[in-house]
Amino acid sequence: MLYLVGLGLADERDITVRGLEVVKKAERVYLEAYTAILLVDKAKLEAFYGRPVIEADRELVETGSDDILADADKVDVAFLVVGDPFGATTHTDLVLRARELGIESKVIPNASIMSGIGCTGLQLYNFGQTVSMVFFTETWKPSSYYDRVKENVQIGLHTLVLLDIKVKEQSLENMARGRLIYEPPRFMTVAQCAAQMLDTEEERQEGVWGPDSLAVGAARVGAEDQKLVAGTLQELSQVEMGPPLHSLVLLGRRAHDLEKDYIRQFAVNEATFDASWKKGGYGSS
Amino acid sequence: MLYLVGLGLADERDITVRGLEVVKKAERVYLEAYTAILLVDKAKLEAFYGRPVIEADRELVETGSDDILADADKVDVAFLVVGDPFGATTHTDLVLRARELGIESKVIPNASIMSGIGCTGLQLYNFGQTVSMVFFTETWKPSSYYDRVKENVQIGLHTLVLLDIKVKEQSLENMARGRLIYEPPRFMTVAQCAAQMLDTEEERQEGVWGPDSLAVGAARVGAEDQKLVAGTLQELSQVEMGPPLHSLVLLGRRAHDLEKDYIRQFAVNEATFDASWKKGGYGSS
Repeated sequence: MLYLVGLGLADERDITVRGLEVVKKAERVYLEAYTAILLVDKAKLEAFYGRPVIEADRELVETGSDDILADADKVDVAFLVVGDPFGATTHTDLVLRARELGIESKVIPNASIMSGIGCTGLQLYNFGQTVSMVFFTETWKPSSYYDRVKENVQIGLHTLVLLDIKVKEQSLENMARGRLIYEPPRFMTVAQCAAQMLDTEEERQEGVWGPDSLAVGAARVGAEDQKLVAGTLQELSQVEMGPPLHSLVLLGRRAHDLEKDYIRQFAVNEATFDASWKKGGYGSS
Repeated sequence: MLYLVGLGLADERDITVRGLEVVKKAERVYLEAYTAILLVDKAKLEAFYGRPVIEADRELVETGSDDILADADKVDVAFLVVGDPFGATTHTDLVLRARELGIESKVIPNASIMSGIGCTGLQLYNFGQTVSMVFFTETWKPSSYYDRVKENVQIGLHTLVLLDIKVKEQSLENMARGRLIYEPPRFMTVAQCAAQMLDTEEERQEGVWGPDSLAVGAARVGAEDQKLVAGTLQELSQVEMGPPLHSLVLLGRRAHDLEKDYIRQFAVNEATFDASWKKGGYGSS
């Protein structure tokens, strides 16, 4: 049996009781370690589980999945995923491959950032499609996400923006020379995301958002030191929210009063918040 | 401290390790028991936790929240919520009330149907806003949900439809006579939802969906006996999916091939699935 086990969002104790039982009795345990991270390292997980954990990088999952699945028709293999196994990054390809090999799969769900973002007090009912924001470079500033956010904005819905992480990436030079030297991990901050959004709007000029548009920044959702900040994109482009992971929600026009009351609690500046709320026509349907 | 603890979707072992620690040491433990249910009863939870649990009905939460919060500035109170505390039903009002009383809150996230529905293989990125479906009566068939689904359909996004549950409801007669007699609980099925959707389309006639539109029915997401079925609304209106809880996803036009491969695994009928996929223009962007 292949078990896909969600680990939740913050630390080793966010696994479910059922998930922990699976991890303890599985023959091999893999940790998917390239699309999201827990706020604790592998050693801490291993100590908590009382057993070794094999780190699965992108290469292993995408091209070596048959190694992961070896013997899984006879023994239990656990594949651990930060958040939910079918959350922001889906592992349907692994399940489909298992099925081709005649191996059954089971999923142990857990909190995903796609639902955990409800901690902002914004109602999940009022979210449109989710988008991802990649790190811009001097020469590569993809704006396809802008079109999707535009669709949400036109309806008046909130947009969850998931922020890029770079783990075990090679520099172009090292890649060209075939050197397996990896860059230090990088995690996009709320401030970087807000700044890139303002960049894109300046380039596209379709008025989907502006410096006064309201948004909520969320850091370390579900952890003891979770931090939420509400403010304009201009304000958020200068906010400091501490260690990863960060996410951002662009507020939709249909926001309710109860949502307003909730996020105003953690406004950077209540005066600019109120002014931007009024100016932006939030709270209308 | 007020702890809002997510219980996840299926049974007592879906609580997280962190959540279980909170439940074991809290002074009082309430179970929110009117917007969703676990697939096990309160007695099983109490046995697993090794302590009593107080059932909190809608009345207690909405008008008696100060009883729940009594002394929570000095002792720990746990408020258990099926799914995630900020998932389909948000408990932001309880948190705001606690704050007014000077009581701190913490949330222990867990799987919500809003992310758990990823078990269908449909990518959460491709979902638009979520809607709720209530039980229609002879004289009351609200169709406001139709307008919101229409917005998703026009963009080509999937729509998660959450299905009504009726727990501890009085009949009009008993209510009028002030008799505290409650009707047996009712849980909407995938078949009832699909039939009501076809009703609404017949009434509204805007072609948002039809008998051949593809959808996925999901029952008991996250449980051992989870069941998924893909088919046309016509087919789903006759499908039998067993005990609650059920949900339905109306497929969006932007569905990818990987999503198609995944849901086709549990098609009612592969031939009608393929024909409807082609006829409906699914897979286009």
